[in-house]
Amino acid sequence: MNAVRGGVCIDLSQMDRVLQVNPEDFDCTVQAGVRRKQLNTELRTTGLFFPIDPGPDATIGGMAATRASGTNAVRYGTMRENVIALTVVTAGGHVVRTSRRARKSAAGYDLTRLFVGSEGTLGIITEVTLRLSGIPEETIVGRCAFPSEAAAVDTAIQTLQSGVTPARVEFLDDRLIAAVNRYSGLDLPETSTLFFELHGSAAHVAEQCELLEAIASENDCLSFEMAQGPDERTRLWQARHDAYYATVNQRRDARGLATDVCVPISRIAECIVETKKDLEDCPVPACIMGHVGDGNFHVVFSLNADDPAELKATEEIGRRLVSRALAMDGTCTGEHGVGLGKKKYLPDEFGEEAMQVMRLLKTSLDPDNIFNPGKIVDPA
Amino acid sequence: MNAVRGGVCIDLSQMDRVLQVNPEDFDCTVQAGVRRKQLNTELRTTGLFFPIDPGPDATIGGMAATRASGTNAVRYGTMRENVIALTVVTAGGHVVRTSRRARKSAAGYDLTRLFVGSEGTLGIITEVTLRLSGIPEETIVGRCAFPSEAAAVDTAIQTLQSGVTPARVEFLDDRLIAAVNRYSGLDLPETSTLFFELHGSAAHVAEQCELLEAIASENDCLSFEMAQGPDERTRLWQARHDAYYATVNQRRDARGLATDVCVPISRIAECIVETKKDLEDCPVPACIMGHVGDGNFHVVFSLNADDPAELKATEEIGRRLVSRALAMDGTCTGEHGVGLGKKKYLPDEFGEEAMQVMRLLKTSLDPDNIFNPGKIVDPA
Repeated sequence: MNAVRGGVCIDLSQMDRVLQVNPEDFDCTVQAGVRRKQLNTELRTTGLFFPIDPGPDATIGGMAATRASGTNAVRYGTMRENVIALTVVTAGGHVVRTSRRARKSAAGYDLTRLFVGSEGTLGIITEVTLRLSGIPEETIVGRCAFPSEAAAVDTAIQTLQSGVTPARVEFLDDRLIAAVNRYSGLDLPETSTLFFELHGSAAHVAEQCELLEAIASENDCLSFEMAQGPDERTRLWQARHDAYYATVNQRRDARGLATDVCVPISRIAECIVETKKDLEDCPVPACIMGHVGDGNFHVVFSLNADDPAELKATEEIGRRLVSRALAMDGTCTGEHGVGLGKKKYLPDEFGEEAMQVMRLLKTSLDPDNIFNPGKIVDPA
Repeated sequence: MNAVRGGVCIDLSQMDRVLQVNPEDFDCTVQAGVRRKQLNTELRTTGLFFPIDPGPDATIGGMAATRASGTNAVRYGTMRENVIALTVVTAGGHVVRTSRRARKSAAGYDLTRLFVGSEGTLGIITEVTLRLSGIPEETIVGRCAFPSEAAAVDTAIQTLQSGVTPARVEFLDDRLIAAVNRYSGLDLPETSTLFFELHGSAAHVAEQCELLEAIASENDCLSFEMAQGPDERTRLWQARHDAYYATVNQRRDARGLATDVCVPISRIAECIVETKKDLEDCPVPACIMGHVGDGNFHVVFSLNADDPAELKATEEIGRRLVSRALAMDGTCTGEHGVGLGKKKYLPDEFGEEAMQVMRLLKTSLDPDNIFNPGKIVDPA
C-alpha cells in the first residue's frame, strides 16, 4: 500500500509481517503491507483462510483502505464485514487502535468502519485485524451457459432466493467468452455464462448443487458442468481466471480500463442488458463480467489510450453506466473505489447534505488536508 | 425510540410505518418507530424475516442507534451488518441519506456505520433500510445439560470451529436453571445448559444436529434433547424465554439489573468461570446467560434497589467484570451500549488517542452538543 501524505508517498510494503494468528478466535492481525496470498500461505496449517479476493495480489492495508471485495463477497462479505480492528496513525501523529478483538461490541463510535473505505484520506492504516473463515470440507465448482444475459442473471438471483449460499457466482457475457476462447484456446459456447462455487460439507454442497441445477434448467440453461477435485476445478474455471487478460488482449498493445457499479439484485439483469446495448455502438471492444450475486459488475475495455476519441467514448459510457446504476438505487462503485475518477459522481449518489457530513469528517480528522489530498472529498 | 435533543425528548414512536419492502432484494425500509415484532408480522407473506432480536420488542430506530444484536447474531450478525442505509437528521437540520440500496459499495465514507451505535449523539435516525433473511425451510432446536460451565461453552466453540453455523447458541448457568425451575415449574437438571437452534434445509439441519450431538457427547453432556415442530420448540426453549424474569423474581419486589461484556471466544469459558466465582460472594442473587457463540454474556442481578450496599456490590462486580473482559481483549459491552453507565470504561477500552478521535467526530457533527448530551463522549 502506498499512503500519500502531503505530497510525500509513504511506502508500507516492507511492513509485511503476520503479527498474530488466533485460530480459536478465527482472527489474525497483520501489518498493512502483508499481501493476501502471503497471508493465506501462512495460514495453511490452521485450517482457516482469508476469503476476500480482489483480482490482483493486493496488500491487506490497501484492501482495508479501499473497502475491497471480490468473487467471494456474496458469501463471506467485503472488507467492511471482515475487518475487526485497525491500527491507524492520525494527522496529529497519534497511534489509534479502533477496536478490541471481540466479535461484536456496542461500545462507542465505529471507528473501524470509518477508516475502512476511506482510501487513506483520514489516516494511515498500519495494522489490520481480520476475521478468518474455516476452509470448507468440500468445494464444488460449476459452469452453465445460457441463451441470454437475463436467463443467466435470473438463475443467480433465484439461487440466492432459494436459500442456496454460493461462495461465488460470476457472470461472463458472450463477447467475453469469445475473447477467452481465442486467448486461452478454449471451445466454450459463446453465450452468457455463469461460473459458481459452493462451499460446505459434502452432503450440503451436493444438495445445493442439485437445487442450482434445477433452477438453471428452469431458466433454459444450455449446459451445466461441475467439478470437484482441485485440478478439475481450475480447468472448469479457467475462462473466469483468464477473463480480464482475454478482454484486454483483444487488440495488440491495448491497455485495460475497468469500471464497476453495483445495483440492487432485482435490477442487475436490466442494468447489464442496457449496458450491453451501449457497448454495441462503442468503438472500443468491451466485455462485461460480474459478481452478480452482489448486484456488482464490471465493464472492461481494451483501450488504445493514445486515441482521444476512444478515451472520450469510454468516459461517456462510464458516465451513462453510473447514471443508470444510480437511477436503480445503486452505487457508482461496488468495489473499485472513488479516488479521483469517480469523485464527481458522489454528490449525485449521496446528495449535498451527506457530502457535507463527509467534508466535516475529513476536516475534523485531517484539518491540514495532508492525507491523500483531492481524493473522495475536499475539506469543508 | 426517544431521541434526546438539547433537553427536549423527541418521541418517534408514531413514525411507525413500513415504507417499502423489496422481497427480491431482501431489504425493506421502515420509519424509526416501527417495532421488530410488527415488522416481522408485516413480512409474513414474503417468506422473509428480520432476524435481529434484542430481548424486548424494541423499535428499529432504537436498535440501529444502539447497534443492537441478540440471540441470532452468531449467524445473522448484529445491526452493524444488517442496516443497509439510514435517513438521519443532522444538527444543522439537514436530512441525510447515508447510502443506496446496493448490497455493497466502495463509494465514500461509511456514514451508515458511523450512525449505527452512536446512541443518538450524532444525529436523529428517522428511517432505516434493513437487510432481510429467508425464513429457513427447517428449524431444529435443542437443549443439552453439561457437568460444568467449561464443558458447555467448549461445546459451543467447538461447534462453530467444526463449520456448523447455528442460528442461536445460548448458555444458562446452574443457578439460572434452578431459578427457572422454580419460576416456570420445570424440572431441568440444575447445571450449566446450552440451548441451540439450527436453520437450513431439512437434510442440512439434520446433518448439523448430528455433528453437534457428537461434540456435546465428547464434552460429557448429561442430556441432549431436540425438537422440530413449533410447539415442541417453544416447550424445549421455555427456560431460555423465561430466563430474565426467573432471575429477577428470585426475590419478592426485586428489580432486574443487567450488564454484559463480550470477549474473544477462546476466552469466554475462563471469563464465565471467573465471573461465577465473583458472584458466589455477592449478597445479591445473580445469574449468567450468554450468547456464547459471539463471546457475549450477561450477568443479571435480582436487586433490592433501595439498599445502598446491594447497589455498591453490583457496581463493584460490574467493574471487575469489565476489567476482566478488557484484559482478555474484549469489550465493556457486547450489545447493551454505553449511555452514561459505561462511559467511564471507554478510555480503558479504546485508549486516549481513539477517544480523542471520537470527541472530534462528536464536535464536528454536533458542535452545540444538542444530541443526547453526556452520553458516550463529551465534545472535544
